Amino acid sequence: MRSSVLFYLTYTLCLSLGLLCVLFVSYWSSHWRGGFAWDYSALEFNWHPVLMVSGMVVLYGNAAVVYRAPFTWKQNKLTWKLVHGGLMFLALLLSIVGLCAVFDSHKGLNLPNMYSLHSWVGICTVAMFALQWILGLAGFLFPCSPLWFRSSLKPIHIWVGKAILILGLASCISGIDENLLLALNESSAEPYNSLPLEARFANSLGILIVAFVLVVFGILSKDKWQRPEADGESFHLLHTEDNTRN
Amino acid sequence: MRSSVLFYLTYTLCLSLGLLCVLFVSYWSSHWRGGFAWDYSALEFNWHPVLMVSGMVVLYGNAAVVYRAPFTWKQNKLTWKLVHGGLMFLALLLSIVGLCAVFDSHKGLNLPNMYSLHSWVGICTVAMFALQWILGLAGFLFPCSPLWFRSSLKPIHIWVGKAILILGLASCISGIDENLLLALNESSAEPYNSLPLEARFANSLGILIVAFVLVVFGILSKDKWQRPEADGESFHLLHTEDNTRN
Repeated sequence: MRSSVLFYLTYTLCLSLGLLCVLFVSYWSSHWRGGFAWDYSALEFNWHPVLMVSGMVVLYGNAAVVYRAPFTWKQNKLTWKLVHGGLMFLALLLSIVGLCAVFDSHKGLNLPNMYSLHSWVGICTVAMFALQWILGLAGFLFPCSPLWFRSSLKPIHIWVGKAILILGLASCISGIDENLLLALNESSAEPYNSLPLEARFANSLGILIVAFVLVVFGILSKDKWQRPEADGESFHLLHTEDNTRN
Repeated sequence: MRSSVLFYLTYTLCLSLGLLCVLFVSYWSSHWRGGFAWDYSALEFNWHPVLMVSGMVVLYGNAAVVYRAPFTWKQNKLTWKLVHGGLMFLALLLSIVGLCAVFDSHKGLNLPNMYSLHSWVGICTVAMFALQWILGLAGFLFPCSPLWFRSSLKPIHIWVGKAILILGLASCISGIDENLLLALNESSAEPYNSLPLEARFANSLGILIVAFVLVVFGILSKDKWQRPEADGESFHLLHTEDNTRN
């Protein structure tokens, strides 16, 4: 199979899983947790899982793989740098609003903040993301950034980028688990360990997030799907290689 | 700095973090959770975090980076394949005994199994690990395995290997969070959200596990630290490159 066809199949899977994650987390919050508001209540909390899953995982993952689409390789790299940076900025913004939602609702409900391991890992993830975005902007988009800075930053940017996705996944899994334990065990006749429909649905959301992140890692780890450094030339090389195979 | 010196510094950090993870999880189980037994009680459960952190994360992570130590590059690859496979087998064994501990204690305490997202992700991780080990044995250690099978399996083996480490981390973070929520909120005068000393200690264990996994990922993602394919020749090339730089 042509490398680019395999890419688009995998990318379609990535997009579908991402869409399913957003739909599942939105349905969970609106159907079982009472919907949304911005009024320091439990309904404001419901924005938290939706914004973190949509921003920190789905949008982040899509922004991470944006350079890999072969159709972009013929185009100006700066355009795709701006797309990458822009999507990442949106992802960061959603994550920060998602954090505001949880702090606000805790304030309204008089609940303490930042006690669970989920919150410790989550806050580290968002802090790393913010720092990564600022350094990325300074290193790769400011025209005056020196070449030595760009070339030293690149491997760190790639490693930290993957680290943020890994920590985003760990935060989501622990967050869903914690949310179900607290919400179901405190209030309902059906505790988490009786595995009611809501628990099965939210656990499935967790598995979808796992699948999405692993597909993103699959795309990132395939060398052939990396944007060639010397644009036109390497692009033609890859396509010639594909064509001789088929 | 010489590439090999930087490797050994990073590897020392990796070993130290791994050791700290094992010490922290053992101390948590023995000091705050009452110690260990193998009698279908809550004390049997205490083996679960110790064995999963030690096997599924620390030993697994060390086994994953074993090929990267430059001193092994001059030696026979088969020896290091056996070390890698042997350490992975030990890690798998510890993880399976760790699962037995939780199933046994749930049976003894009449608690349901496999309801939480932590357990869903955890069981998927161990199942993937077992499959990966069997396929790795068949593909890379059986002398009769065909070359096409080895070369097709290698990128999948590397990707699944990283996926298992990521899922191992997500399982540990959600497991520690869940354990603290259940144990502290049910029985003690100091619930999790009052952040007693035990909670701070176990949360720190979680952060240590995160740091360990990210260092392992750092080692795995640095191309220069990959074992050269053509042993002696590439080894000399790398060392010459290092020497000319210093």
